[in-house]
Amino acid sequence: MKAHLDVITLAVHDLARAVAFYRDGLGLPTKGIVATEFPPTTTDAAGAVAFFKMQGGLMLAVYPRRELARDAGIAESPPSSGEFSLGYIAESAAEVDALLERAVAAGASRTEPPRRRPWGIYSGYFRDPDGHLWEVIWNPKAAEPS
Amino acid sequence: MKAHLDVITLAVHDLARAVAFYRDGLGLPTKGIVATEFPPTTTDAAGAVAFFKMQGGLMLAVYPRRELARDAGIAESPPSSGEFSLGYIAESAAEVDALLERAVAAGASRTEPPRRRPWGIYSGYFRDPDGHLWEVIWNPKAAEPS
Repeated sequence: MKAHLDVITLAVHDLARAVAFYRDGLGLPTKGIVATEFPPTTTDAAGAVAFFKMQGGLMLAVYPRRELARDAGIAESPPSSGEFSLGYIAESAAEVDALLERAVAAGASRTEPPRRRPWGIYSGYFRDPDGHLWEVIWNPKAAEPS
Repeated sequence: MKAHLDVITLAVHDLARAVAFYRDGLGLPTKGIVATEFPPTTTDAAGAVAFFKMQGGLMLAVYPRRELARDAGIAESPPSSGEFSLGYIAESAAEVDALLERAVAAGASRTEPPRRRPWGIYSGYFRDPDGHLWEVIWNPKAAEPS
């Protein structure tokens, strides 16, 4: 296996709401909901999905949680936070604060104020409208001249 | 917010087991468990974590689920699949089959046999030892001359 990851798919309750949050709220680029020409069938999940193009060929996707469960062949389960988090490295503590505020304004919830962690970073978490965790990080050491 | 994602952290029950799965089972590069000098405190989570370096500056991390909940300031919840999936693009259908078999041999569970999806890809899913979903994908269209 190559050390490569191509897609991160987030299970969402409402595809349009998730697109609005990531596109309009956070400003991530997307073509919007695509693959709507593939309705659910007796054997297959629906295709409709939205992709946000990140760095290095990585795609962030939002996909209905029922369809992800069907596509993966697992039972659908109620939403649960804490299975994973996505980390975003900001360039300053002020940018951490600002991005958390922007996310909350767009419909996210903040779990607690951002703060310095014992390992040196300054960070805070938000949960997107589906409860998925994001940690927004500033690493002062990364800013030091090496 | 830039279209950039720096870390994907998977909540795991047993850090050593997760490292063994991803390093020894799947062959991903890592320095092993680091930040062990930060024990849990009354206010902070433990630091111990392992990183796997992916493309484009992206890090895949494994971190104890209890510590992720503490670090994020949320309640710990029982494991649940279906909140997200990680997608890996292989270069052939045979590579999809082989990687699924390799994952299962390393301790993953397969949800169903890989198959062609209506949108043209050939893919199958496995769940890592903590239940996190991976979809291994071959896209025949990507192999066509353009």
